[in-house]
Amino acid sequence: MLNGRFSEARLRVRYAETDQMGVVYYANYLIWMEVGRVQYCKDAGCDYSVMERQNGVLLAVVESHCRYLHPARFDDEVIVKTWVEEANTRMVRFGYEMRRADGQVLATGETKHIFLDRQFRRTHLPETYRKAFGCERRPEA
Amino acid sequence: MLNGRFSEARLRVRYAETDQMGVVYYANYLIWMEVGRVQYCKDAGCDYSVMERQNGVLLAVVESHCRYLHPARFDDEVIVKTWVEEANTRMVRFGYEMRRADGQVLATGETKHIFLDRQFRRTHLPETYRKAFGCERRPEA
Amino acid sequence: MLNGRFSEARLRVRYAETDQMGVVYYANYLIWMEVGRVQYCKDAGCDYSVMERQNGVLLAVVESHCRYLHPARFDDEVIVKTWVEEANTRMVRFGYEMRRADGQVLATGETKHIFLDRQFRRTHLPETYRKAFGCERRPEA
Amino acid sequence: MLNGRFSEARLRVRYAETDQMGVVYYANYLIWMEVGRVQYCKDAGCDYSVMERQNGVLLAVVESHCRYLHPARFDDEVIVKTWVEEANTRMVRFGYEMRRADGQVLATGETKHIFLDRQFRRTHLPETYRKAFGCERRPEA
Repeated sequence: MLNGRFSEARLRVRYAETDQMGVVYYANYLIWMEVGRVQYCKDAGCDYSVMERQNGVLLAVVESHCRYLHPARFDDEVIVKTWVEEANTRMVRFGYEMRRADGQVLATGETKHIFLDRQFRRTHLPETYRKAFGCERRPEA
Repeated sequence: MLNGRFSEARLRVRYAETDQMGVVYYANYLIWMEVGRVQYCKDAGCDYSVMERQNGVLLAVVESHCRYLHPARFDDEVIVKTWVEEANTRMVRFGYEMRRADGQVLATGETKHIFLDRQFRRTHLPETYRKAFGCERRPEA
Repeated sequence: MLNGRFSEARLRVRYAETDQMGVVYYANYLIWMEVGRVQYCKDAGCDYSVMERQNGVLLAVVESHCRYLHPARFDDEVIVKTWVEEANTRMVRFGYEMRRADGQVLATGETKHIFLDRQFRRTHLPETYRKAFGCERRPEA
Repeated sequence: MLNGRFSEARLRVRYAETDQMGVVYYANYLIWMEVGRVQYCKDAGCDYSVMERQNGVLLAVVESHCRYLHPARFDDEVIVKTWVEEANTRMVRFGYEMRRADGQVLATGETKHIFLDRQFRRTHLPETYRKAFGCERRPEA
């Protein structure tokens, strides 16, 4: 966890998110990670929708990983804890822990992203947003 | 049904589309209508992705309606029958019937759309595509 | 609106809910209606997950209708207002209004449901929950 | 790849699967992996819905991993190649490659699953299905 900073987003499991096994379908945890990630950026002073619209910088995912520890169920209150595991001006890797409001950990995960411009070419994170991701110095490469 | 023309698209119910009731979640039928609609346009010589990219014309939905007659289940093969119920250069209304491969009707529905340009202003369907929707003459209004 | 009672649920538009038109995909409004409906039931003293698990009563949708008035966008805060339009011990019809936090109405809709037992046979709403839906008397039919 | 056996499932990218970046939203690749997995099981003589309904055996995911190599777009035809990377009577690990019909690889991934009974307790894969997963002998542990 970079600088010990993290964010928490709360959500309630929707009926739509369950499957016929009676628990949350596994792809939905990646959507919850997105909810956590958006919250992290917002808390860090980097509004994702503004960055996309005004700076033309897209946060494209290149890798996702999730470990499912305990099934989430309809109407559970879920807390998505999000932090930056690693970041430089070319990429950022987020870590996540999803737990129920009563403390039961449901899943953990990571996503790795690169910065793209509107033409989908790799770019650097604009200066303005570097502090938010904890990567104030430009990498050599 | 305009001119008696219709299209059929086939799909297989995904596990992701079920909910804890053990049947397909109701919002997914609207996604299936989209699958049917895209097929209808393609069969009629109007590739939707081309129309959007090259002509900058968006087919924005303004109304949807669905009657759920029989629950669809995981791995069912579903046939989406799609036709144009009404069309002019400003709007188009599609009709749908979704049935299982064995003939059991699952749902019926309608969606109404208007044509928008990239700035989300109402526009007319380009000449090239009018035949596809069966609206070769321009309405008075 | 039955007895003037209504509920409001708040949600924030997820990136996952947008499509390449840059706005919320139309099927997601039905998921938001579910969020509103669950909130309504909870506020009325009828926990939907309890009713399903303990009483074995399912609220199966038989019809949905949505009018899309203004596109919702990523990160918009949306308020789903839900009320009962009509109810008896055999069916319930909900009404919805979805608006942005700044007041802009995004969509309106209705869903109609019947009560089923675990074997998917039609049943009556249990006594305990009738007050919640405003249908304390049993219909003749 | 166990015994060199693999399966291929075909699908067409739905408009619903895109996001405002104009490409497929990252969680949908996990749904495609499910489509590939179901096809693999079917081809191997193990109908997943039958196994769940008749044998009461659930294939619960415990881990997912996806590398996103090239963005998929609306209406792309996608081929999901699926194989078993490792299997015993307690768990199975699937590998996936998702490519466009023109050969462009879009993503690769893995999912790991355990077998559960209806009460969500760990169980062994029934004898009947072992050949399908290539795990005819029972592990020591």
